[in-house]
Amino acid sequence: MNQLIVIAHPKKDSFSQRLKTELENEFIQRGDSVKIRDLYELNFNAILTDRELKYNKVGKTAPDIAVEQGFIFWADEVTFIYPLWWNAFPAILKGYIDRVFTNGFAFKINGKGPVGLLHNKKVRLITTAGMTEESLNASNIFEGLRITQEHGVFQFCGMKVVDHMYVTSVTSLSAEEKNAELKKLLQKVFKRESIES
Amino acid sequence: MNQLIVIAHPKKDSFSQRLKTELENEFIQRGDSVKIRDLYELNFNAILTDRELKYNKVGKTAPDIAVEQGFIFWADEVTFIYPLWWNAFPAILKGYIDRVFTNGFAFKINGKGPVGLLHNKKVRLITTAGMTEESLNASNIFEGLRITQEHGVFQFCGMKVVDHMYVTSVTSLSAEEKNAELKKLLQKVFKRESIES
Repeated sequence: MNQLIVIAHPKKDSFSQRLKTELENEFIQRGDSVKIRDLYELNFNAILTDRELKYNKVGKTAPDIAVEQGFIFWADEVTFIYPLWWNAFPAILKGYIDRVFTNGFAFKINGKGPVGLLHNKKVRLITTAGMTEESLNASNIFEGLRITQEHGVFQFCGMKVVDHMYVTSVTSLSAEEKNAELKKLLQKVFKRESIES
Repeated sequence: MNQLIVIAHPKKDSFSQRLKTELENEFIQRGDSVKIRDLYELNFNAILTDRELKYNKVGKTAPDIAVEQGFIFWADEVTFIYPLWWNAFPAILKGYIDRVFTNGFAFKINGKGPVGLLHNKKVRLITTAGMTEESLNASNIFEGLRITQEHGVFQFCGMKVVDHMYVTSVTSLSAEEKNAELKKLLQKVFKRESIES
């Protein structure tokens, strides 16, 4: 399987970065091909401009975006790893979606409305949050993200969201708790995979 | 009243830009002070980096962010005008929130959790969408934005969301329909104001 990991965490020593590395190793060990897009490391240009909108409208694609679309096209599964900032994607990842998921690549509009074009691709979302699970629950954030991210972005494009995993209270976890969370996440990913295949 | 308008639309001739100008004129006519922050025109840097996170942690503020915080501090009401891209803010506006709404300015953490610091400020959200009202409703997007934007950003900071207005199907409206929508929106803003005051 072709595994694409898109990570959007600014800290090089973050839990997210560790998780990315562990996930990459596990995928490789079982024979998958892995490609990583680290949006901060790439210094990804997140701003969709008027010029690019016009460019897209006539069926053209900016060179940096053609590269990213190539990675998604290649992938069987895409794993997004990102911190929850203001109950949404960090701007750099929001901009990746604004620019990469173009009309004509991720969806098209026919007479009946929009139709997703990224069928046969699975998505796994791994979201880290500083807030506690209780406070996210109390604000109904999990439902908010189901609507705005899982449905509102990925299912809209025809992708199958196989999992949305959360690591909550991440900034207050001890080193040991982080190790335990990491192990739990990896088990979840690979257990689910083996059930599905 | 001090009125801050934050606009995040890349097209200079967009409905959003017209709305901004009309709103500005109406505010001025009734004696308000108005300041505009056009994030695309400002070429606003939307990317919160590790360096800035560390800088914020020791109570410092980046110079461009101190400017934006000054505008919010000055304002009695803040109106955000933006297109709905992927059921969320465009990246440039998401980055404005990521960077401007810092711990210590927009909220603080005390023993019981986060506490908003922007009390006594009102927020008005004006969201334009290409999709129809029916399809947004069918996907429960209005509820998704209530959770992730109204509550998840502004009420979290103690701001009062006085209105969240939508212009749907905006890309397929005729010139006349756009004029009618514009008029309706302005009436809504100023009718609500006169009821409240």
